[in-house]
Amino acid sequence: MLPTASEQDHVPPAESGRAPLSPGYPEHLRAVAEEYLGALSFAVDAEAHGLDEAMRYSLLAGGKRIRPVLALATASAIGREPSWVLPLAAAIELIHTYSLIHDDLPAMDDDDLRRGRPTCHRAFGEDVAILAGDGLYAEAFVLLLTRQEAPPDRLLAAARELADATGAQGMVAGQYIDVAGTAPAGPAGLRRLHELKTGRLIAASVECVLLLDGLQAAERIRSFTSFARELGVLFQIVDDILDVTGTPETLGKQQGSDERLGKRTYVTEFGVVGARELAAQSHGRARAALAQAAGPAGSHSTAALEQITDFIATRSF
Amino acid sequence: MLPTASEQDHVPPAESGRAPLSPGYPEHLRAVAEEYLGALSFAVDAEAHGLDEAMRYSLLAGGKRIRPVLALATASAIGREPSWVLPLAAAIELIHTYSLIHDDLPAMDDDDLRRGRPTCHRAFGEDVAILAGDGLYAEAFVLLLTRQEAPPDRLLAAARELADATGAQGMVAGQYIDVAGTAPAGPAGLRRLHELKTGRLIAASVECVLLLDGLQAAERIRSFTSFARELGVLFQIVDDILDVTGTPETLGKQQGSDERLGKRTYVTEFGVVGARELAAQSHGRARAALAQAAGPAGSHSTAALEQITDFIATRSF
Repeated sequence: MLPTASEQDHVPPAESGRAPLSPGYPEHLRAVAEEYLGALSFAVDAEAHGLDEAMRYSLLAGGKRIRPVLALATASAIGREPSWVLPLAAAIELIHTYSLIHDDLPAMDDDDLRRGRPTCHRAFGEDVAILAGDGLYAEAFVLLLTRQEAPPDRLLAAARELADATGAQGMVAGQYIDVAGTAPAGPAGLRRLHELKTGRLIAASVECVLLLDGLQAAERIRSFTSFARELGVLFQIVDDILDVTGTPETLGKQQGSDERLGKRTYVTEFGVVGARELAAQSHGRARAALAQAAGPAGSHSTAALEQITDFIATRSF
Repeated sequence: MLPTASEQDHVPPAESGRAPLSPGYPEHLRAVAEEYLGALSFAVDAEAHGLDEAMRYSLLAGGKRIRPVLALATASAIGREPSWVLPLAAAIELIHTYSLIHDDLPAMDDDDLRRGRPTCHRAFGEDVAILAGDGLYAEAFVLLLTRQEAPPDRLLAAARELADATGAQGMVAGQYIDVAGTAPAGPAGLRRLHELKTGRLIAASVECVLLLDGLQAAERIRSFTSFARELGVLFQIVDDILDVTGTPETLGKQQGSDERLGKRTYVTEFGVVGARELAAQSHGRARAALAQAAGPAGSHSTAALEQITDFIATRSF
């Protein structure tokens, strides 16, 4: 019953996924990000017209594309062609988009604006938005399991990690703790919430590439993993700061939504100045872990990962 | 990051999944179904307490358990131990439960009662219900990919089929067509809707077992597949009839909800008498396909599959 490649490839050029990247995206990452966007074109077919429209609407709206670019850059860092992990990268962006659609729902954060346009449920209705999210999550696995080239045992390992990172032990648990407000008091509780809600998927964007590759060097794996997890923390601290200091134009979503929902953030916990200091520390730790992961001098380049790390630390959207 | 077996196995006996089967469940299927229920005990851990409670609430509420029992009976029919496919069977029930939770949401069918108790969103709130569904779907893949024993390439094939059957080319598309009311007029449109919405997952309950097994005989595969798809149709026709003729007590959910939502069903299309006639024809076709699938005389027994088929045709809940 799986669609064949030819059935999936009939997407017309106008919908081929080449939506513009957010303005302000660093020029040196643009090329690799644009390469990846093409992979989305075969990722959002649905049996029902209308459903695919809603899926495409949210998926192809632009955004930072940090997670897929991270996967491509990781491939490069271990000496692989970035294009090799395009299906994985696209699958990760499908999952990220699904999580945004469900997070924005009236019963959750009730947001009206996302990636600079009305949220999925504002554009298509709540029922369709729920199903568009459900569909994107399923299609992420179809895409990964159907299109990603790797020996079966490695593909299994990557799929397992992706499901675990995004399920009731990972992303979904983080979102639950967030909406239910059940994170323990103090920085440790906050950190745990964000490790689950955003950190696991960001880390998986790196770790799944290592799993597909079958990387054997335990020490390098540990360094990459430390790097990936620290990057998740860094991303979240900056996100919390931007929710206070950004504008709807730069953010593509409402500013101040954390405060409106009474959420605990790095800013409510430490103030903007304290959060900026924490971000700087986290940035330093991420770069240090990356230097470890780079391996012996003369081995493959972690330049793209360094650029992404710096971009995450200094982004304004 | 995946939980180890020992971490997952600490579920206390009271929550071990041995919820009672619905009254009226045929005695001869009870043993195999009860065996399966134990497999659910390790399937619903969540990192966040409260989320796992909601997942368990819906998962362990009882129900017919037709899909997992179908998987176990299929294993038996191809000469395997039914217990071999317990992880697959449990994964399928997790997915089925996720689909019920999301279908019942206020934005969808807005149902108050399911499996004889308040629906998940009535008991835990809409936000938690959405996340419980999301979590169950992810954990289904964790479970299948972590616990199911099979050669990697066969496990991949089964996971691929399960994702495809339940995504935007399958179950989610069917649900979309149902809520959006976009099925083409006439019996063909109705049949297509149900093939997607319920048929694909019921068929996958059979087909994934064949994929895990690596069954080579093309003709037997075709017969099993025909059987599985016909069973999906039969299930739906009977379901539509029961929505008119059942009671909340026997159904465990509100009677007449199809009519309330103005849905097209086999009853609105053909009347109760016409639908009963169609069910009888479908039952006959399913039994004929199964007889083909049984293979040469003296090979493995399809007795359990025959019993399930008859149960689906004659069930009152």
